Amino acid sequence: MNVKKINDRVDDPGVPEQWQMKDERRAFLARGVALTAGLVASAGAGTARAADTASTEIPPWSKAPGTPMRAYGMPSRFEEPVKRVAATGYAKVSPGTGSSLTPLQALEGTITPSGLHFERHHSGVPDVDPIRHRLLIHGLVRNPLTFSADALSRYPLITRTWFVECAGNSARNTGPKPLQVTCGMLHGLVSTSEWTGVPLSVLLEEAGVDASAKWLLAEGADSAAMSRSIPLDKALDDAMIALYQNGERIRPEQGYPMRLLLPGWEGNMNVKWLRQLKLTAGPHHTKDETSKYSDLMPDGKSQQFTFVLGVKSTITRPSFGMTMEGPGLYEISGMAWSGSGRVSRVEVSTDGGATWAAASLQGPVLSKAVTRFRLPWEWNGKNALLQSRAIDERGNVQPGRKAWTAMYSTENRYHNNAIQTWSVNADGSIANVYL
Amino acid sequence: MNVKKINDRVDDPGVPEQWQMKDERRAFLARGVALTAGLVASAGAGTARAADTASTEIPPWSKAPGTPMRAYGMPSRFEEPVKRVAATGYAKVSPGTGSSLTPLQALEGTITPSGLHFERHHSGVPDVDPIRHRLLIHGLVRNPLTFSADALSRYPLITRTWFVECAGNSARNTGPKPLQVTCGMLHGLVSTSEWTGVPLSVLLEEAGVDASAKWLLAEGADSAAMSRSIPLDKALDDAMIALYQNGERIRPEQGYPMRLLLPGWEGNMNVKWLRQLKLTAGPHHTKDETSKYSDLMPDGKSQQFTFVLGVKSTITRPSFGMTMEGPGLYEISGMAWSGSGRVSRVEVSTDGGATWAAASLQGPVLSKAVTRFRLPWEWNGKNALLQSRAIDERGNVQPGRKAWTAMYSTENRYHNNAIQTWSVNADGSIANVYL
Repeated sequence: MNVKKINDRVDDPGVPEQWQMKDERRAFLARGVALTAGLVASAGAGTARAADTASTEIPPWSKAPGTPMRAYGMPSRFEEPVKRVAATGYAKVSPGTGSSLTPLQALEGTITPSGLHFERHHSGVPDVDPIRHRLLIHGLVRNPLTFSADALSRYPLITRTWFVECAGNSARNTGPKPLQVTCGMLHGLVSTSEWTGVPLSVLLEEAGVDASAKWLLAEGADSAAMSRSIPLDKALDDAMIALYQNGERIRPEQGYPMRLLLPGWEGNMNVKWLRQLKLTAGPHHTKDETSKYSDLMPDGKSQQFTFVLGVKSTITRPSFGMTMEGPGLYEISGMAWSGSGRVSRVEVSTDGGATWAAASLQGPVLSKAVTRFRLPWEWNGKNALLQSRAIDERGNVQPGRKAWTAMYSTENRYHNNAIQTWSVNADGSIANVYL
Repeated sequence: MNVKKINDRVDDPGVPEQWQMKDERRAFLARGVALTAGLVASAGAGTARAADTASTEIPPWSKAPGTPMRAYGMPSRFEEPVKRVAATGYAKVSPGTGSSLTPLQALEGTITPSGLHFERHHSGVPDVDPIRHRLLIHGLVRNPLTFSADALSRYPLITRTWFVECAGNSARNTGPKPLQVTCGMLHGLVSTSEWTGVPLSVLLEEAGVDASAKWLLAEGADSAAMSRSIPLDKALDDAMIALYQNGERIRPEQGYPMRLLLPGWEGNMNVKWLRQLKLTAGPHHTKDETSKYSDLMPDGKSQQFTFVLGVKSTITRPSFGMTMEGPGLYEISGMAWSGSGRVSRVEVSTDGGATWAAASLQGPVLSKAVTRFRLPWEWNGKNALLQSRAIDERGNVQPGRKAWTAMYSTENRYHNNAIQTWSVNADGSIANVYL
């Protein structure tokens, strides 16, 4: 592998004093002598910044004791720019209504840190007391039941790594011109967590579902009472009442103390702060599934329901906001997912889709979870058009932008799973482009 | 499944007004009428607390908009008791020296939230600037090299879910009498993360390891310069220079901006804030591998090195600090892990080891990762002695307390992987006992 341009070769094989072992260094430190610059030279251009400084000073953090234990940790202060960015179009009318996006371009692996999981609230984050909160299962059942979070935690639990994606994710890429914003600002309404909770089928079995029941109404405890109609088949298949997220109790922004999870189905059906499931014969046509989250078609009519999220991927690195540091080896890294199951293949193009190469998929590849893909790339310093295309185990192929656009009205903003293109320019800048 | 005691049956099939859909509720809310108590009765004793209150009031969080978006989220204020507990025996002498423990009893699934990952610092947490920090690879190599965090992020990355466990974990269970403290206070020096970084073998290949090199000295950038000697074979096998933890840049307490990971090997060899790897012919016998982390044997001598962590497990729920709420169905839940690979089987006893039942293992079961195990249990209300026993894919079996104790001096405090026993008493209390 040619990585000569990345690291810094040490010209002088003699080791400068600041690299000597601590014990050997003590005498030196006592003398208080400033080190001579240039003992370690920066041989490669690479990504080394402030190399001389780094190489010739004993840094302050190695000279004095650091900070003590903390009850609950946070990222380094140097990572402060890595945060959710709020897109609160409604904020003046209704604070807490809107969304905030996960900074995908700054993350790696598959898990989204809970502090950076995207948010989409219809009336802010309710401050739910878990002792007082109840989930009611009623309607067309033999035994209406209520459950506290404590009660649910005594049921047999299961753990699953699943993504949640808002139906409005990537809406910013449906406008007439490509926005020059980060990958997270375009596609950051998708996040992945390890969820632990109770299979909904167990609770429904106990409630005794009537034969006439075909749907459930799920309602949240937020003051907007966000509610969606859910087919009974999905509830009996792989739905979960989640209590834990990435090991700890589910975060307030994701539905503390309990949320509905319908893996692979559009985000707002995964009702947060879940307070009731009402078994019904038909769908309710709530405000949240009619005025919103329905696809506008070319003939001006709306698609009634679009539950399953399409197969999708995006390259997260390199992407807008980063700068290529000259020709050489880079790793192309990205995320792929499908509402229909496992990702089976991700292809990467550096020439705008003329040719494709298979990326490696980071295992274990799990159903309805984000899969990290990676491909080493030797950049020659010329313009390149980076794309990724995901294929899932059912043979679904992520559509190109033109193919996706042709399926809907130009006004449709939902369920955009079209291929993302990043233009890597000769000057090292990266742009969002439409192909 | 008999869960009759857990949930609350709704006696009156008529649904109280507060459970009606939001739209139906508006007129009611406008009237400002207090709801009559008792519409939803608590039929089961179960775990329902304040059931009447929960059932007959519209909670305040459903009446008014919640809080707006946050740049970086935190757990609910109701989860404030779930925190790391510091055990800083040296705190008066050297603040920042000591450890803090993960509250295992409050967690589920396999991932440890990064904010609750255990800490063990020898001179506090250094505030490392990632732009200035360098890793030097030198000693018996052809090409001494330095790497910045930015440079490493351009190398091909891999993602692995691994546990890290301090060699001193469970030392509190080596004293003469069993301490009555939580599972986390006993065994909480083990945590699991999804790590992403560069295989160390790639960097060593580039540096060109001399045939005479058999060991590496790894040194941290903390002011204690924590350092350990590492056999070259392990470095070339599955060692990683980790840059990311659970999706985001590695946390300061775990070595920001880079740490060494030696999966399955005792915690302090996984050197944090890694600043140098020096290739050598033999081990260095540093202060951190001689005065500490070595096992005292029955003959009064110390074992020179104990690298690989033993196969181990503990039941996290029920455990000390919890109260059984009467006879009925409970789920026994716990964690199992092995430094030698995958957990192949976990057995659970409720009679102090007289009989054993196989627990279910939560998949995917990964090598050198914590595996969650679970077993439903119908408690009859009498005294029970709960134990778990893990077996790994190499056939290693977790030892009982007596067998483990017989292997070492009574003064040994390291590498305790003995079976934990929780006594569930007839009054519902739970105690730590020695068997």
